[in-house]
Amino acid sequence: MSDPNPDHDHTAVVHDAAQIVTVEADGSLGIYEDAAIAVVDGEVTRVGATGPVTREYPPENAEYAIDARGKAVVPGFVDPHTHALFAGDRSDEFEAKLRGKTYQEILAEGGGILRTVRATREASDEELLSHLLSHLDTMLAHGTTTVEVKSGYGLDTATELRMLDVIARANDRHPVDVVPTFMGAHAVPEGRDADDYVDEVVDEQIPAVAEQGIARFCDVFCEEGVFSVPQSRRVLVTGEEHGLTPKVHAEELAHIGGTQLAAQLGATSADHLLYATQEDIDAVTDAGVVPVLLPGTAFGLGAEYADARAFLDAGAPVAVATDFNPNCYSQSMEFAASLSCVEMGMTPAEALVAGTKNAAQALDMDDGTGTLQPGTPGDIAVLDAPSYVHVPYNFGVNVVETVLKGGEVVHHE
Amino acid sequence: MSDPNPDHDHTAVVHDAAQIVTVEADGSLGIYEDAAIAVVDGEVTRVGATGPVTREYPPENAEYAIDARGKAVVPGFVDPHTHALFAGDRSDEFEAKLRGKTYQEILAEGGGILRTVRATREASDEELLSHLLSHLDTMLAHGTTTVEVKSGYGLDTATELRMLDVIARANDRHPVDVVPTFMGAHAVPEGRDADDYVDEVVDEQIPAVAEQGIARFCDVFCEEGVFSVPQSRRVLVTGEEHGLTPKVHAEELAHIGGTQLAAQLGATSADHLLYATQEDIDAVTDAGVVPVLLPGTAFGLGAEYADARAFLDAGAPVAVATDFNPNCYSQSMEFAASLSCVEMGMTPAEALVAGTKNAAQALDMDDGTGTLQPGTPGDIAVLDAPSYVHVPYNFGVNVVETVLKGGEVVHHE
Repeated sequence: MSDPNPDHDHTAVVHDAAQIVTVEADGSLGIYEDAAIAVVDGEVTRVGATGPVTREYPPENAEYAIDARGKAVVPGFVDPHTHALFAGDRSDEFEAKLRGKTYQEILAEGGGILRTVRATREASDEELLSHLLSHLDTMLAHGTTTVEVKSGYGLDTATELRMLDVIARANDRHPVDVVPTFMGAHAVPEGRDADDYVDEVVDEQIPAVAEQGIARFCDVFCEEGVFSVPQSRRVLVTGEEHGLTPKVHAEELAHIGGTQLAAQLGATSADHLLYATQEDIDAVTDAGVVPVLLPGTAFGLGAEYADARAFLDAGAPVAVATDFNPNCYSQSMEFAASLSCVEMGMTPAEALVAGTKNAAQALDMDDGTGTLQPGTPGDIAVLDAPSYVHVPYNFGVNVVETVLKGGEVVHHE
Repeated sequence: MSDPNPDHDHTAVVHDAAQIVTVEADGSLGIYEDAAIAVVDGEVTRVGATGPVTREYPPENAEYAIDARGKAVVPGFVDPHTHALFAGDRSDEFEAKLRGKTYQEILAEGGGILRTVRATREASDEELLSHLLSHLDTMLAHGTTTVEVKSGYGLDTATELRMLDVIARANDRHPVDVVPTFMGAHAVPEGRDADDYVDEVVDEQIPAVAEQGIARFCDVFCEEGVFSVPQSRRVLVTGEEHGLTPKVHAEELAHIGGTQLAAQLGATSADHLLYATQEDIDAVTDAGVVPVLLPGTAFGLGAEYADARAFLDAGAPVAVATDFNPNCYSQSMEFAASLSCVEMGMTPAEALVAGTKNAAQALDMDDGTGTLQPGTPGDIAVLDAPSYVHVPYNFGVNVVETVLKGGEVVHHE
C-alpha cells in the first residue's frame, strides 16, 4: 500500500500524535498511540508508530507536515442527513416556541417549513449558494469532510432543480464533499392535496431531476399528516426507476410504517426512527438499511430520542447526523456526538463510528471513507485534545483544530 | 456621558450592527437596530442609531472600528460559577460512565474529584497556569469576558493557596477578568473525617487565605454525604469574619437546606438548586441571593434540571453558569444558554440576561458589567449572526466572532 517514493509531491504526514484513531472493518476502533499517518495523492498509505511511518514518509519532504504532539487524530466526520440549503431566518420561531407558542400556531401564522419554502423560492441562486457555502465552512471547521444535503424547500420542479444545481455548485467550489439528495416530497405545498402533489413529484419532478443528473438519492417525509406509506412508496419506487436510491424519513413523530417500507425497498437508510418498534429494528437490520439517528432534532423539539441501544444490540450499523435545518440549527457533528452519548447512551467509540464509517455507509460510499484504513480517502480531523473522547466530552465546544481533505489542509484553527 | 473629544486615543466604535442588545435596570433587553456603540477609556459612552453615534464618534478616528453589518452585538458573557483550574484528564470517566460504570465504582477505583485533587497537587504552578490560561482562551473565544474560578482541588492549605495564586496570575495575564473564590470545603479529602477537615478549613485554611488576600468569595459544597448545613455554616461564617463573601453549592443532589442557609447568611449566590422547594425559592428571592443555575451539569449527569421558571416567576434574578469542571466539560456560556432555553424553558432574552447582568450580580459586581449601559465596562461580543437569539438557537456552535474587553479587541475569529 505504501508509496515507493517518499519524496512524492502530494504527501501529507501527521506525526507524533498522542492518538490516531481508525475504524476497522468490524466497526471497532483502531487506536495508535504516539502515531503518524501518511496520505499520498489523496489516499491514506500508512498509519502506525511515528518512527517507522516518518522514516518512510519524512515530514520534511511532505507538502503538509503536521506536528500533532498531544493531539488526537480521527477520520473527518461524515454528516449523512442535512437540509443545509435554505434561505431565511427562523430563529424567531425558536423564541416563539419558548414563549409557549405551539408549532400549529406558528404554522397558522405562516411560519414553519412553508416559510422556508417561500424564502428559498424567492432567493437568488447566488444567495442560496452563498448561504450553503457559509454553512459548509462551519461544518468543515467542526471536522465534517462529507455531507449530504437535501433539496425539498422548493416543492416545485423549477426550485427543486435550482436547489440541486446549487448543491452541485457548492460541491465544486468547496473542499467538503456534498452528496445531493432530491426531496421534493418534503412537505405538501400550501393549498395542495397530498395525492395531487405526489402526482407532480412522480410525473414531473423526478423525471426532470433524473434528466438534470445531479441527485444521487431520493428521500421522502413518510409521516402522519404528510406522506402516507403508499404515497411514499410511489415516490421512492419512481425515484428508483429513474436511478435515484431511496432514503426514508421514518417514524419521526408517529409510527406509520416508514421503516418497514425502507426495509422492503432496500433503502440505503431510514432516518429519525424515534417511534421504531423492535420489529422495525430487526427489519432494517436484516435488510441492510442504515439507521440514521438525529439527536439534535429531538433536542430542539424537546422530544424523546431514538433508541440507539436497541439498534446497536440488533447489530445495525447505527449512523448519526446533524439534521441541520431551520428547526434544528446545528452544523456540528461534535454536538451530535455529545447528544449521542449523553442522551442516547452511546459510548464515545460508538458515536465516532456512527459519525464516520457508518455515516459513509448511509451514503452508499464504498471507498472506505470515514475509516482511515490504507487505500481510503485521507479525510482527517486533528483535534486540540488528547483523545477522541473529547469530541463528545467537551460539550458545545469545537475541539477540531486542523482538517485535511484528501490529504490537503483545508482548515486550520 | 459622552466624551467631548471624539479623537480620543482609546475609543472603540462598533457600527452598522443589525442589532445591539443592552440590558436595562429592570432586566429587560434594550434592542437597537442598525445601531452603533462607542466605548471610551474602557467604558460605554453611547449606544444608539449608527448615524448619530458615528457622527459623535467617527469610526475613522477610533482605535478599534468594527463594521458589524448583519451582525448582532451583545454584552460579553459573565460566567459566575466554574472550577476551571485543575490538572489531569478525566474524559475516560465520561466514557466509563457511558459503559455503565456508576460514579461510586469510579470513586472506588480512585477516580472522581479526588483524582483531580491528586493531579492538581502534583502539577507545578506553571502547568496549572498554562491549563487555566488555555481554558480562558476558549472561554474568551465563546464571548466570556468575566469568569469566576474556584479553588477546591487542593484540599490542603498549601495547594489551596497555590490555586488562588495561579488564579490571580491568570487574571493578571489574561484579558478575561477572573474572580477568585476560595472553596477549601469542596470535598472531604481521602481518609479524613468531615468535622475534622472543617476544623482545618476554619482554623487554618481560611485565615491563611485571608492573609494571602486574593479570594473574594468563600464557597462550600453543602450536600448530603459531603458538608452538612451546620458544617457549611461554620465555613461560611468564618469566611465572612475574614472578609470572604459567602456562596453556597446547594441542593444539587439532594435537599438538605443549603438554600435556606444561603438566605439566612445573605450569601451572594446559591448555586445548582435542582432540589430547591418553593419555600427555598421564596427565601433566596426575599434575601436577595442570586440563584445560579448550572444546566450543563444536569446535562452531563443525565439529571433533572433546576426549575428556572419557578425562580423567574418568584422574581429572582436568575443567573446561569457553565460549572466548567472535569465532570461538566464545557467552557461555553453559549451552550449553557442553549440548555437554559431548550431544557429549562427560558426564553433567549431570559438566558441572555442570566449570562450577563444577573451573572455579574452573582459576583457582587456593581459597575454595570453585563449591561452595556453608558458608564459601564465596554465588554462586548460581536456575533456572526443577525440576532442574539442565535446564541441559544445555534446548538453546539460558537457564533461569537469578535470580543472587546474594556473597549479593546481581545479576540477575533
